[in-house]
Amino acid sequence: MAPEGSLPGESSTRGSLPEGSAPTATVGRVKAVRQRFAAALQLASGERIADYTLVYETYGTLNAARSNAVLVCHALNASHHVAGLDASGDPGWWDNMVGPGKPVDTRRFFVLGVNNLGSCFGSTGPMSNNPATNRPWGPDFPVLTVEDWVHAQARLADALGISRFAAVMGGSLGAMQALAWGLLYPQRLAHCVCIASAPKLSAQNIAFNEVARRAIITDPDFHGGRFYDHGVVPRRGLQVARMIGHITYLSDDVMGERFGRLLRGRSEEEAYRYTFDIEFEIESYLRHQGEKFSGYFDANTYLLITRALDYFDPARAFGGDLVKAMASAQCAFLVVSFTTDWRFSPERSREIVQALLACGQPVSYAEIDAPHGHDAFLLEHPQYHRLLRAYFERVAAGCNA
Amino acid sequence: MAPEGSLPGESSTRGSLPEGSAPTATVGRVKAVRQRFAAALQLASGERIADYTLVYETYGTLNAARSNAVLVCHALNASHHVAGLDASGDPGWWDNMVGPGKPVDTRRFFVLGVNNLGSCFGSTGPMSNNPATNRPWGPDFPVLTVEDWVHAQARLADALGISRFAAVMGGSLGAMQALAWGLLYPQRLAHCVCIASAPKLSAQNIAFNEVARRAIITDPDFHGGRFYDHGVVPRRGLQVARMIGHITYLSDDVMGERFGRLLRGRSEEEAYRYTFDIEFEIESYLRHQGEKFSGYFDANTYLLITRALDYFDPARAFGGDLVKAMASAQCAFLVVSFTTDWRFSPERSREIVQALLACGQPVSYAEIDAPHGHDAFLLEHPQYHRLLRAYFERVAAGCNA
Repeated sequence: MAPEGSLPGESSTRGSLPEGSAPTATVGRVKAVRQRFAAALQLASGERIADYTLVYETYGTLNAARSNAVLVCHALNASHHVAGLDASGDPGWWDNMVGPGKPVDTRRFFVLGVNNLGSCFGSTGPMSNNPATNRPWGPDFPVLTVEDWVHAQARLADALGISRFAAVMGGSLGAMQALAWGLLYPQRLAHCVCIASAPKLSAQNIAFNEVARRAIITDPDFHGGRFYDHGVVPRRGLQVARMIGHITYLSDDVMGERFGRLLRGRSEEEAYRYTFDIEFEIESYLRHQGEKFSGYFDANTYLLITRALDYFDPARAFGGDLVKAMASAQCAFLVVSFTTDWRFSPERSREIVQALLACGQPVSYAEIDAPHGHDAFLLEHPQYHRLLRAYFERVAAGCNA
Repeated sequence: MAPEGSLPGESSTRGSLPEGSAPTATVGRVKAVRQRFAAALQLASGERIADYTLVYETYGTLNAARSNAVLVCHALNASHHVAGLDASGDPGWWDNMVGPGKPVDTRRFFVLGVNNLGSCFGSTGPMSNNPATNRPWGPDFPVLTVEDWVHAQARLADALGISRFAAVMGGSLGAMQALAWGLLYPQRLAHCVCIASAPKLSAQNIAFNEVARRAIITDPDFHGGRFYDHGVVPRRGLQVARMIGHITYLSDDVMGERFGRLLRGRSEEEAYRYTFDIEFEIESYLRHQGEKFSGYFDANTYLLITRALDYFDPARAFGGDLVKAMASAQCAFLVVSFTTDWRFSPERSREIVQALLACGQPVSYAEIDAPHGHDAFLLEHPQYHRLLRAYFERVAAGCNA
């Protein structure tokens, strides 16, 4: 599946390898594994989910000390397929970051990618059969939180015999999971890598999520979330939701550079067509992204995951005091932001950093000057990758990887 | 009708009068006037529109020299009802700016507000009867440009015996019309006042418009623009379109201050409800705005006006050279931007200013430090209103108003 909002071919062509680095290669063909959990999972909402399955992939080898495991958490529309090529030959969403000779080097680390509960790529979610009714869960699937995901991931780690991760990492919503790991399971990770994230959504962030949800929920083909029973998909709503999301993933700058006011299929000198059909390249690009997305993503999952984003607010249990919230962490932190990211601006990452500093936690922070907006976390920007490479040297040293 | 995205009660409670100013009062009850034009209007698209009507309001008195007229151009969802109280008792959308003792003082100026061609508040538009088919124009209404509006406004000025305006002014899309006046009818205005605007839309601006249009066009109740024949309105699409627009009218800051992460109908300490229904205040606010808007605004008009925004690009006829485009102007310019406006940021206003300076045009520029984002142009910010008041003193001196 596609990274959050990358431009076509971008992740494979952008950037270049830092000097002296090892040649890169993907981890090759990978196969997803299903792990069933029979014991019920207690959720933040008060509901419980029994008998669920998580799908995951791993890359590299767990060492004898079981000390070299890295958990990669995914964002809104990604999955367990982080690296290598899946059965369809599609590369993982962070294949430029994870692999032999890559910043998270699978010759040293055992990397785990998990499809989150409630997602639509194999793990139990709204499309799955609800044993209580013997039909798809649909809108009855319980509302989830970032913390619920982390608890589910911890159980998977148990099943894999990983008592402590060398690092838990992610970008965007993935970084929120990494952060929650640091606070919920302080003894189970040595390093927490939070990229392009925020300690909670702003009103504007929630607003964008809400508009996307309204587009989906008000699509007549949504059928109150029971569209599976009707043999339809709320494609129109999903398309609009994705188009909105996509705008927030890209910087104004990079949109201007790539598309500007270019007309679709004609030169700049030619006359406008005076139509509501596609006139500008940016329209064509966005529609294409929306159509592609609506062909593979589950509408109920979109609601669930955006709501988990809205609800994330670790300071809430501490009267809004993020410093108090961070005090329980016992790992080292790397926080990374990108200058042109306006979805989760550098300011939002600095909130995390300042709270960590205020309670004496070890934290490194880098603000990468990259033009790509929020999407930068998925791209192969040299300075960014050099930073992650260096940081994972430190992670490796700490766990004898 | 509501200003672009103001918060409830905002325009009447914000700001305070500059010291020593005259007491403010509205222009009182006003009555819209209909003006029919029998001669066909040639449009930029190549189409012609025959036998159309424009609705307008005026405030103040045209002096004997006919030198004190000010044209106020409206933005996306506003109308000819600029000031005073209409038949329903609703105040005009810029009532804080135009009136006796207000920055544009109707004791001195004769102010004209016109509902643009293609809009839905009385002027000929998609809801009007198409004489060729004897049914509503709907999607057959010709695509319009900012320049088309200006030509239509010039004809209305002719009809009113106004050969030259003391000033043409507007905010946002209204400012684009003012700018086009300066370039198309250089001898027909002494001053051009462009507030919170841009010389053309960016890719991101077009992208937001396109998502809004997709939401409307893909609403099954849109019926290809023929929804009038079906007795329905594409409310869902209009709601989503308005919610998207609304997010771009407000600054992240002001949204955070007003709404933040406040829960709807409960205190911050209470538990989340774990629902896709309204949980946060910002959701309630946006839905309310969307619902209100979908009750009064025409969907075809929304398409037309956003497309006119997309197409505006006066430099296009000059190979993209804005300096060359500006060279034909003969008026003085006031350009105003607001620090937290991210729809049309100060940088975009400075593009206009720099082009004007480069071709030797007289221009004053002010960047107002206001927290309200794009919406600031509609609000009664003291520094902003003081600036406009001072500028209109100069306008008045030039026309013996």
